Amino acid sequence: MDIKEYLARQRAIVEEALEEHMLAADGRLVDHIKAMRYSLFAGGKRVRPILCIAAAEAVNGMPRPLLPLACAFECIHTYSLIHDDLPAMDDDELRRGKPTNHMVFGEAGAILAGDGLLTYAFELLSDPALSVHIGDGARLRLIHLVARAAGPLGMVGGQALDVAAEGQPIEFDALRFIHSCKTGALITAAVQAGAIIGGADEEQFAALTTYGRQVGLSFQIVDDLLNVVGTAKELGKAAGSDADRQKATYPAFFGVEGTRARAMEAVQGAVAALAGFGSQADPLRELATYIYTRTT
Amino acid sequence: MDIKEYLARQRAIVEEALEEHMLAADGRLVDHIKAMRYSLFAGGKRVRPILCIAAAEAVNGMPRPLLPLACAFECIHTYSLIHDDLPAMDDDELRRGKPTNHMVFGEAGAILAGDGLLTYAFELLSDPALSVHIGDGARLRLIHLVARAAGPLGMVGGQALDVAAEGQPIEFDALRFIHSCKTGALITAAVQAGAIIGGADEEQFAALTTYGRQVGLSFQIVDDLLNVVGTAKELGKAAGSDADRQKATYPAFFGVEGTRARAMEAVQGAVAALAGFGSQADPLRELATYIYTRTT
Repeated sequence: MDIKEYLARQRAIVEEALEEHMLAADGRLVDHIKAMRYSLFAGGKRVRPILCIAAAEAVNGMPRPLLPLACAFECIHTYSLIHDDLPAMDDDELRRGKPTNHMVFGEAGAILAGDGLLTYAFELLSDPALSVHIGDGARLRLIHLVARAAGPLGMVGGQALDVAAEGQPIEFDALRFIHSCKTGALITAAVQAGAIIGGADEEQFAALTTYGRQVGLSFQIVDDLLNVVGTAKELGKAAGSDADRQKATYPAFFGVEGTRARAMEAVQGAVAALAGFGSQADPLRELATYIYTRTT
Repeated sequence: MDIKEYLARQRAIVEEALEEHMLAADGRLVDHIKAMRYSLFAGGKRVRPILCIAAAEAVNGMPRPLLPLACAFECIHTYSLIHDDLPAMDDDELRRGKPTNHMVFGEAGAILAGDGLLTYAFELLSDPALSVHIGDGARLRLIHLVARAAGPLGMVGGQALDVAAEGQPIEFDALRFIHSCKTGALITAAVQAGAIIGGADEEQFAALTTYGRQVGLSFQIVDDLLNVVGTAKELGKAAGSDADRQKATYPAFFGVEGTRARAMEAVQGAVAALAGFGSQADPLRELATYIYTRTT
């Protein structure tokens, strides 16, 4: 399969679903909705929804009406970027080559755009119209794992640790924990959500969870690496900015080559977890490899 | 019934449930959890959980294991206060007589504490352990109405409009819309959640929704009024701060007496909505009146 072609196709499906299920920018709340839409439609790669869809396809498929569930991950991811970019956090002025949300809508507007996207994700996840397509029990389980992954013991907690660790000496063990919370948890949840949507049995769910964890890990390692070796154009923000802020990263511990080797190891772990799946899991396999090739 | 005694008893029940169901401040994420707990246990009146419980009691009662659902409203309310107090928003240094979250944990810490509490609310709402006590369909419905009430078309949207309206001339109609989003929506949702938990039929649900809307309205009107006539001690923050910031309020439109009359009207509307309920709705009736007496 041609992974680039697959990604382009899936991304178009996600864009269309986001457009359909995101609030339209009109009415009294137009400015707030515009602020949310600005970052949601700022050219994201849609990795999490695509992983969710691909995981569902690895089992029994993804019914089209359930795409809002995949879209919820993009809302949560986008909210996390908006808040991470705030002056009080990473203080980034550019994201994907465009001014960050607070540069356009002000700090209050950006904080609220993030809050709105996070809450809207749970509105999508709990939409009663979806109950004809997925069992209520399965959906509750899905909502719970998303909340856990995005919450204080997951993404938010990881970001809190990341902020606190800035400029501090940090053990590798602590770095790995921050990564697993900040980036790994939501990526894993996206894959697990796809598994639930696809009707995975226990064994399949466990295998896809391992896949998600390994992909999440490789994703963060590659991000660390791109921050060192990437160009500003590829990143959409200043290269080397992590080092400037004395952020703990994989390359700081293992150098560029050692970091590449660890990313490759995670990719292999992800692919190995899919041993029990047939060709319908090929997109997941290719996705894992594709993430790694971004570094080379 | 003695409403003060009832409130004290219910508040103790909510405190205990919050203590039981909130994350303990230990482990690697201890600082983040401390920041969340600081504001969650800062002496809140627990109005929303108590309304939720009282609404359930007005129907068929509130099984004790479902208290985490009521606690979720306090998590969401607390997050909204933390974010409202931020320098980029209302820039308040005191809340309930204590330094605001960002004064203690810094801006980044406070933003993340709010994010964590909001997300944790959905973790509580979707806890799989509760499925033996409430139908999955009812719970999904509950989650959806909470997400709607707290989200871009509810509380967050209202706050965005409130921030944007500061210092601007504003029509009464717009003020009423801001109030209904910012304060009314979550209070109404707390009552509706109680109705669902109590197993309300359609008619009861509609009546309790009307009650919730009217109580939410009176609550905001009274808040506006207290900001004008209250003392710093009662408010836990500087009195007159809304006027200082040129915030649109009811007293600015109707004066103190006219505002009192409108609050009373809302209280009467709330009580009238309960006509079909027996004495088990007395706490709701007394609660509505009690909110009004805060102004006199």
